[in-house]
Amino acid sequence: MNKYSDRIASLRALMRSRDWDAVILTGSDPHGSEYPAERYKQIRWLTGFTGEAADLVVTADHAGLWTDTRYFIQATEQLEGTGVELHKTRVPEQVLIPQWLAERFGDEREPVLAVDGASISDSFVREIISAFGPSEPCIVSAPDFINYLWTDRPAVPQTPVFTVDSGSDRSSKIDRLRVFCSEHACHGILLTALDQIAWVLDVRASDIEFNPFVISYLLVTEDDVRWFVLKDQVEDPDSENTFALLSDEGITLERYDSVDEFLSECGGMTLYTDPSTLNRQLSELLDNSGVTVYRGASPVLEWKAVKNPFEMEGMRQAHIRDGVAMVRFLHWLEKSMQAERRISEWDAAVKLGEFRAAVAGYQGDSFETISAYGPGAALPHYVTPRQDAPVLESRGLYLCDSGGQYLDGTTDITRTVPLGDLTSLEREDYTLVLKGHIDLAMAVFPAGTPGCRIDALAREPLWRFRRNFGHGTGHGVGWFLGVHEGPQDIRQNLNPAPLQPGMIVSDEPGIYREGQHGVRHENLLLCVEQEANEFGRWLAFEPLTLCPFDTSALDIDLLEKAELEWLDSYHQKVADTLCPLLPDDLARWLQQKCRKIAKFAH
Amino acid sequence: MNKYSDRIASLRALMRSRDWDAVILTGSDPHGSEYPAERYKQIRWLTGFTGEAADLVVTADHAGLWTDTRYFIQATEQLEGTGVELHKTRVPEQVLIPQWLAERFGDEREPVLAVDGASISDSFVREIISAFGPSEPCIVSAPDFINYLWTDRPAVPQTPVFTVDSGSDRSSKIDRLRVFCSEHACHGILLTALDQIAWVLDVRASDIEFNPFVISYLLVTEDDVRWFVLKDQVEDPDSENTFALLSDEGITLERYDSVDEFLSECGGMTLYTDPSTLNRQLSELLDNSGVTVYRGASPVLEWKAVKNPFEMEGMRQAHIRDGVAMVRFLHWLEKSMQAERRISEWDAAVKLGEFRAAVAGYQGDSFETISAYGPGAALPHYVTPRQDAPVLESRGLYLCDSGGQYLDGTTDITRTVPLGDLTSLEREDYTLVLKGHIDLAMAVFPAGTPGCRIDALAREPLWRFRRNFGHGTGHGVGWFLGVHEGPQDIRQNLNPAPLQPGMIVSDEPGIYREGQHGVRHENLLLCVEQEANEFGRWLAFEPLTLCPFDTSALDIDLLEKAELEWLDSYHQKVADTLCPLLPDDLARWLQQKCRKIAKFAH
Repeated sequence: MNKYSDRIASLRALMRSRDWDAVILTGSDPHGSEYPAERYKQIRWLTGFTGEAADLVVTADHAGLWTDTRYFIQATEQLEGTGVELHKTRVPEQVLIPQWLAERFGDEREPVLAVDGASISDSFVREIISAFGPSEPCIVSAPDFINYLWTDRPAVPQTPVFTVDSGSDRSSKIDRLRVFCSEHACHGILLTALDQIAWVLDVRASDIEFNPFVISYLLVTEDDVRWFVLKDQVEDPDSENTFALLSDEGITLERYDSVDEFLSECGGMTLYTDPSTLNRQLSELLDNSGVTVYRGASPVLEWKAVKNPFEMEGMRQAHIRDGVAMVRFLHWLEKSMQAERRISEWDAAVKLGEFRAAVAGYQGDSFETISAYGPGAALPHYVTPRQDAPVLESRGLYLCDSGGQYLDGTTDITRTVPLGDLTSLEREDYTLVLKGHIDLAMAVFPAGTPGCRIDALAREPLWRFRRNFGHGTGHGVGWFLGVHEGPQDIRQNLNPAPLQPGMIVSDEPGIYREGQHGVRHENLLLCVEQEANEFGRWLAFEPLTLCPFDTSALDIDLLEKAELEWLDSYHQKVADTLCPLLPDDLARWLQQKCRKIAKFAH
Repeated sequence: MNKYSDRIASLRALMRSRDWDAVILTGSDPHGSEYPAERYKQIRWLTGFTGEAADLVVTADHAGLWTDTRYFIQATEQLEGTGVELHKTRVPEQVLIPQWLAERFGDEREPVLAVDGASISDSFVREIISAFGPSEPCIVSAPDFINYLWTDRPAVPQTPVFTVDSGSDRSSKIDRLRVFCSEHACHGILLTALDQIAWVLDVRASDIEFNPFVISYLLVTEDDVRWFVLKDQVEDPDSENTFALLSDEGITLERYDSVDEFLSECGGMTLYTDPSTLNRQLSELLDNSGVTVYRGASPVLEWKAVKNPFEMEGMRQAHIRDGVAMVRFLHWLEKSMQAERRISEWDAAVKLGEFRAAVAGYQGDSFETISAYGPGAALPHYVTPRQDAPVLESRGLYLCDSGGQYLDGTTDITRTVPLGDLTSLEREDYTLVLKGHIDLAMAVFPAGTPGCRIDALAREPLWRFRRNFGHGTGHGVGWFLGVHEGPQDIRQNLNPAPLQPGMIVSDEPGIYREGQHGVRHENLLLCVEQEANEFGRWLAFEPLTLCPFDTSALDIDLLEKAELEWLDSYHQKVADTLCPLLPDDLARWLQQKCRKIAKFAH
């Protein structure tokens, strides 16, 4: 028994008092965000589980946490003593929540299933209802009911809001939304996704760790733009200036918590909204208020994925400065290991954070740094421990996956560093993964190609040796927005969204051997258009990331001539761009790291 | 004005007599077959258009033929003087038939649209109805109405039916169907696709050119197997034996034209059937007879795609004998050109046909041979003219795409033959296409991978030079069944059907330059399983086709070491397998064609 089992017990008491047969909680916030603010870490508060993807079901006699393969080990450890059982998803024998609930309550007359309507998506609730077939359950949407138990629950965050220059302007983006509404015979569009709202209004804050968003809703109609953003009295000058500026531009500022009331008075209107980021509470409210809801993918998803020239140049600049920080870090790491200093995974992560924080325009990291030596690197979702982190030794591979948010862009880079002698398997894995990375980076492909059709280019050098990695090859990246964004990606799922010039994707193949080592090489790539010819339009990639790949770990004979040429050419660009920005000793070190290797091939 | 415009006029007279506002005709047969029997070439009879994919709409004042990019040139020529207009599909500005009809008749009260219910799919009719929205048209399903006009229309063909040994037996396939029905809570399954029926019953005939099928329906229930196959009095011994054998096995033989009557008495039953091959007539009949229809993909599609060991070995044997015919043909071609004989595209096709016809077990070709020299080869759907076909010259490239049906398998092979001097572009295209072919043939990939994810492996060597081809890379192939079968393929469409061991696909990239030349290299590949390891299960391909690729046309410097090794190893297998079956002079010729080339690389 521990504090979590106590909290579950108090939840059960609440359930009994309200005659709820079950409670379903997710790790969502009201905006379908991938990463929630502290306030929305209700799963962690109730169970102690800290993983990113989990849903909880509590009944009178059962408490279950549903999560996937990435978190089984972590969940088993963290749930011990809580009374919460692990339910495994993404395995052949999986029983998902809707099915589990239907089996548990199928025989009962109208079971009462309670959800926090603010923090569960409408589509998940519909799945649950569907699973019951003809004998529908009664769904109670009790927004924020957990406040009764979590009495010191953090408030909705309210960090300083400021404007950014994105090379576009909010009035043209708003016009674009109005044209979209008109094409879809709608009076307006309700945006709920935080990154989309930030993009439309060119505003940022730090309401969520690693994600520079402003927790708010945005309603754009023919005549109005209403930003539901105000929380408590704002006293910081940034926010005051921002709100004044937007007001002057004709944007109406409303209280964040007044969105329900406002929408309930929109009866008779037709509003477009994206169901994937619409919470149950709002969905029910719109349907019950006589609003005609046109549910469809938000157009902003694709619009913001295609960067304009200003954003592209911003990303380039941010990557130059981020590259300097990475080079300083890798140089520090090498010198420290040579000097036999005791460096743990945590020490390295902290040091890298210091180098990044010194970069002009730095706004914070874009995600939690993964700093992993040896076996730790074999776990793609490894969490570097703060205490007693493994110490780096002068052999094997050290993997570091990190990134920054800057006023002019977002970065995400992985480098795998040889710390001394390598086994032949480490060297081979390192080389094959770099081949996969390079083959995708140098790809030329027809306009209209979705990422799933070029995913194999990054995997084929590994497949030839019967090796593979279980995660995706690449994700879209935002411009000083989320480090993960769609609609495009490069992975095994047959996502039909085509790659377009101006989109940014990561290129991050890897090989992971449990208990031994892991390798990942990651750059961000900007999709660019090349000259068309009689066979059509052609796209390719321009690497944004500027940082050397350690060539001493390569088995050069495994590389094709074209791959060696790409690597030498890339390193030339790294050296040419970064050396002028570095002190002499680092510039010399970088030149050495970037020396040509094609001549060493047989 | 010509006979076709007369026929359209007589159709219009029929329409007036029945108060039909429009007639929609497709090139389907009642079984959704890709290639219809002569009886079902109603589009050709009415318009003179001989292409494979076209639909026709006739109203009082308009006659239109809808077809896609492959046939625009052909359609424009063939429709001249008919009064039928070409409507282009698969172009950005396309207006498809449902939309066209809705726009033409949307304002009228209940327009009467007539179809030949036997020769149109239920799903196409539903699309037409949908396009009208709330103001539904009246659909008249008048099966075989064209008989009133096409008075000498061929009857439903009835060629000798014989049994085959497929290494399986029909009773186990029928049991498998019964288990499927039981799993889907159905009383029975109605099979309408001809290749599927042939597979279940292990029967063949030649009711359709190039396709060894028996035009029939098959109804499998818990207690019964009913084969609706009998047409007029059968007098050939093969059919008599086959019908007797199947009767003895408990299969009930019914008249082909009694299926409507039988199904109309199935009220109260639940029947599973595949809507993609269900004609409108049967669909309406089932729905109106109180039959509960469970519409879903037929399981037989996937079952027959995965060949059993007997079928795999049969395919290997058929390819050995087909390879001998191809080698004899290529040898004849080379010697004839050297002797400066006058060979036209047609002459070559005829000669190849003779070599194939001499092969043991030959049952006919698997499709119409494409025999194309120079610019003709740039048209993937080139039809070799019987008269005045271009003459082959002693320079440039000759392309031949052909295949046979054998009692033990089906073949489909393309070879591009250099006839003398080549331009550097011809040589480069030839080489890049072979690289693409080899890269796919030598691929190793995880079990569960669908073809669309490895399509890029065959294209990447071309893309690197900004070249591409517009057709798919590969299609599934049946075992003495259709030369095209699903569910798997290797093409740009995101078809999720995974490749499985035992499936057979073609590997046929190409480069086509209008007015100049075309290259295609095609083998059939058998998907095989390799040893699994810690990274999972691995699949690869074994080439079934045995025939040399002409290496004299290669720019060897463009080939990777692994590609050269694959090619030498493949040619070794070709020589080792075929030389013992050839007369000495041909065996020596083949040895020379198969000599190693890796040593010539720099």
